[in-house]
Amino acid sequence: MSDATTLCDIGLIGLGVMGKNIGLNLADNGYKVAAFDLNEKSVQAIAHQDETERGAQQDARILPVKSLGEMLEKIKKPSIIILSVPAGKPVDIICSQLLELGLQQDDIVVDTGNSLWTDTVEREAGYNGKFVFFSCAVSGGEVGARFGPSLMPSGDKNAWSRLEPVLEAISAKVDPETGLPNARNSYTEALPTGEPCVTYIGPAGAGHYVKMVHNGIEYADMQLICEAYQYMREALGLQPKEIAAVLREWNKGELNSYLIEISAEVLDQDDPETGKPIVDIILDRAGQKGTGLWTAVSSLQVGSAATTIAQSVFCRALSSIKDERVAASKIFSKAPALNLSEDEKKAQIKQLHDALYCAKMCAYAQGFDLMKRAAKEQGWDLDFAEIAKIWRAGCIIRAVFLQSITKAYQRDAQLENLLLDEFFAEQIKQFEPAWREAVINSIKAGITMPTITSSLSYFDAYRNATLPANLLQGQRDFFGAHTFQRVDKPTEETYHLEWSQADRPLVRIQ
Amino acid sequence: MSDATTLCDIGLIGLGVMGKNIGLNLADNGYKVAAFDLNEKSVQAIAHQDETERGAQQDARILPVKSLGEMLEKIKKPSIIILSVPAGKPVDIICSQLLELGLQQDDIVVDTGNSLWTDTVEREAGYNGKFVFFSCAVSGGEVGARFGPSLMPSGDKNAWSRLEPVLEAISAKVDPETGLPNARNSYTEALPTGEPCVTYIGPAGAGHYVKMVHNGIEYADMQLICEAYQYMREALGLQPKEIAAVLREWNKGELNSYLIEISAEVLDQDDPETGKPIVDIILDRAGQKGTGLWTAVSSLQVGSAATTIAQSVFCRALSSIKDERVAASKIFSKAPALNLSEDEKKAQIKQLHDALYCAKMCAYAQGFDLMKRAAKEQGWDLDFAEIAKIWRAGCIIRAVFLQSITKAYQRDAQLENLLLDEFFAEQIKQFEPAWREAVINSIKAGITMPTITSSLSYFDAYRNATLPANLLQGQRDFFGAHTFQRVDKPTEETYHLEWSQADRPLVRIQ
Repeated sequence: MSDATTLCDIGLIGLGVMGKNIGLNLADNGYKVAAFDLNEKSVQAIAHQDETERGAQQDARILPVKSLGEMLEKIKKPSIIILSVPAGKPVDIICSQLLELGLQQDDIVVDTGNSLWTDTVEREAGYNGKFVFFSCAVSGGEVGARFGPSLMPSGDKNAWSRLEPVLEAISAKVDPETGLPNARNSYTEALPTGEPCVTYIGPAGAGHYVKMVHNGIEYADMQLICEAYQYMREALGLQPKEIAAVLREWNKGELNSYLIEISAEVLDQDDPETGKPIVDIILDRAGQKGTGLWTAVSSLQVGSAATTIAQSVFCRALSSIKDERVAASKIFSKAPALNLSEDEKKAQIKQLHDALYCAKMCAYAQGFDLMKRAAKEQGWDLDFAEIAKIWRAGCIIRAVFLQSITKAYQRDAQLENLLLDEFFAEQIKQFEPAWREAVINSIKAGITMPTITSSLSYFDAYRNATLPANLLQGQRDFFGAHTFQRVDKPTEETYHLEWSQADRPLVRIQ
Repeated sequence: MSDATTLCDIGLIGLGVMGKNIGLNLADNGYKVAAFDLNEKSVQAIAHQDETERGAQQDARILPVKSLGEMLEKIKKPSIIILSVPAGKPVDIICSQLLELGLQQDDIVVDTGNSLWTDTVEREAGYNGKFVFFSCAVSGGEVGARFGPSLMPSGDKNAWSRLEPVLEAISAKVDPETGLPNARNSYTEALPTGEPCVTYIGPAGAGHYVKMVHNGIEYADMQLICEAYQYMREALGLQPKEIAAVLREWNKGELNSYLIEISAEVLDQDDPETGKPIVDIILDRAGQKGTGLWTAVSSLQVGSAATTIAQSVFCRALSSIKDERVAASKIFSKAPALNLSEDEKKAQIKQLHDALYCAKMCAYAQGFDLMKRAAKEQGWDLDFAEIAKIWRAGCIIRAVFLQSITKAYQRDAQLENLLLDEFFAEQIKQFEPAWREAVINSIKAGITMPTITSSLSYFDAYRNATLPANLLQGQRDFFGAHTFQRVDKPTEETYHLEWSQADRPLVRIQ
């Protein structure tokens, strides 16, 4: 057995893009890591990168190991083991192997993958008493993982006490005054200080649930930008670099965010092979990894109208049937680009900005509404101000905007919907007319902006005291005797009209 | 043991609205039924209704029984037992009890409830060898069940041979020439003739899946009508009875359907208690039983963009948060009713008609697309012309429209999407401008028509050869190294740009 003084602090299993960078991030923060991957090349790669970054004179911070057994020998007891393996079966396989290799009751296994939250709940219960299965959802992509991600841990509270210093160390940091990231972008830079983007979310599964909703919002955020891009491109006839310039301008104001920033980068980029704009070379078929889909499914199941998020998932599905779209495009001709003056273009671009901003508010309102309803169902006590806080840096949806959401929930922790907050209500009121115009323009042009449009539908339905569900309940009672409530009676009472009888008497059912 | 000559043909378990009516329908068609329900009053009720309808001189057609055991004694062997119990646990409980009571390998249990199709698949496999678990989804509400529903049976083929004459007898009938129902509306009328609305759908689960999609379409169909109603009511200022008159007019043309017909009935109806229009008395909070939700979830899971259907489910969720909507309505003022001339109103009503028709085509296109993709995943060989055929009568979405869908799939059984069919493409082209106008009007007025609007978004995305998923794939590659395909390379090849390197080289990944 190795000397305890040289034992590693943490075991790391899975050295893909995310795992490798989490390992190097831990190393930067002074943790010695025993790193394992089924693919030996990945093990060599992280050891090599460690050597490059620290310089050959310094002691190795990453210890490459050849097996799970060797890893367990080389780490301190009780152990902390971080998993960064694909969600699903691999997590269970590794956990079983670790158990066979002698994992103990006070050892902690931290799942950092994009696991389905219900799997996390089942695993925590299933491994209870054998070892501590803890989850810590990670957002930030490869750069976030390397220099500071946003972390959403959940599970056993005692395990959290042991993990807290480690997770705080590697997390992204925010300037508490401005709400902006104190970012570190290279290993040569000093470690950043500020408020850490990690907070204990709740019991097992809560962290992965919140991360899932984060990704659902991310789907919407990305699609919203794409729709504004498409309108500028197809209806206004702007070139990718011109659109990049618009986005950089937008990035100075309310829309300031990582996703706007990188969208500009992508639009500015030429393809190294052809010299053409890379967006014109990238095939318009979007993939997905499941979290956006899970968010939409969950929103249907808990009855939260996350229409903007669901629409963004459907947009990916529509993108993937390229052949059908090409066939349809030959049957249904599209309107030509509008022939607008520069001033008219500028006016429409301004409207697009406002539309994007309003739709974004709806997407976030929906995401937080979904978390609220799920938390009620699951008995989680989610702190929405804290959740908004840890999304201000490190994660993909990081934006100044999250500071406003933090403040809204600090004003009222029980806020029913973001749109009802005084700040957001005022913002919507201010930008709503332009939002409406932008949607109308896109419908006229036949260049659809499905999520921006469905956000407006959401808003218009949400702020309407009377929806036509009265007729719908009438239909349901007519054909299926599904009963209805009356506006003039307590909602506990249900009624049915005997539609098939000539005089149609009213019957109280409950 | 009873004399075989007096044994019943069929056992029926569950005598709620649907079960009772299926029993009487079987009786009308000459089958003697042993009827059981946990609630003794329900057993007495069906026996009483049987006596009323047949007249006291005739022999009883329904034999009330007091237990499952008695039921098994009183029916022919091998048995046919029909279940009409709530979906979920009750089905399993009854099946277990029947097994304990000695059900045999060649006895058939037919589940007619709104079961989740995956449960049906599991049950068929689970009971295999013990008895035949067969499923037959039923649409048509209480009147349909009584006088001829649309039936979607699936499961064991031998069982189907035995059940076919029974199910054909009780199903709705269609005039093969016109595609219209040969309806029977009262027990005093003669049994109708024509093409039966039942066809063998496929292996276990297929029938319930198809029924689920039927209900998803039904959700959309209902919501579409409700939105047209709301616009006429709130923006055009029409009264319920005026709107009923508009719907009756619409019912003479392309929109002719059961749902339009009953919507007019509901809008014409006064509340027996207050004398006011019943829609003004019915609370605008819609319930749901799950099948629409399941359809939307399935569409997300199989990657079929059933946006109109999903939106209609979300509309029910939005309707249910009445308190929040009332609160929001106080913050965000709504535009007043438009002040239009009678001619302008007429023009807008015509546009609404066209919008409703186009959106309806999209809803059906989505439903059939969903079935196509699910069938591919499950290895079902669905006959879409036959499915459209059996929906022409008996079920809630019955409409002349289904005859057009039948013809489209008869022209091309492999049709990728209904909108690509020559007839539907022509219809869309003809009505699209008015559809666009109607949506624009609703956005201007702030009286949202979410599903009519999202249908237009669907159409505009579907017929666009280039969607902005190219930028989206660029974003995903930027932050997550998710790779992309190139328009100038085979789609098997995937690429990644090293965005964090200064010269951003292109790397082929696969």
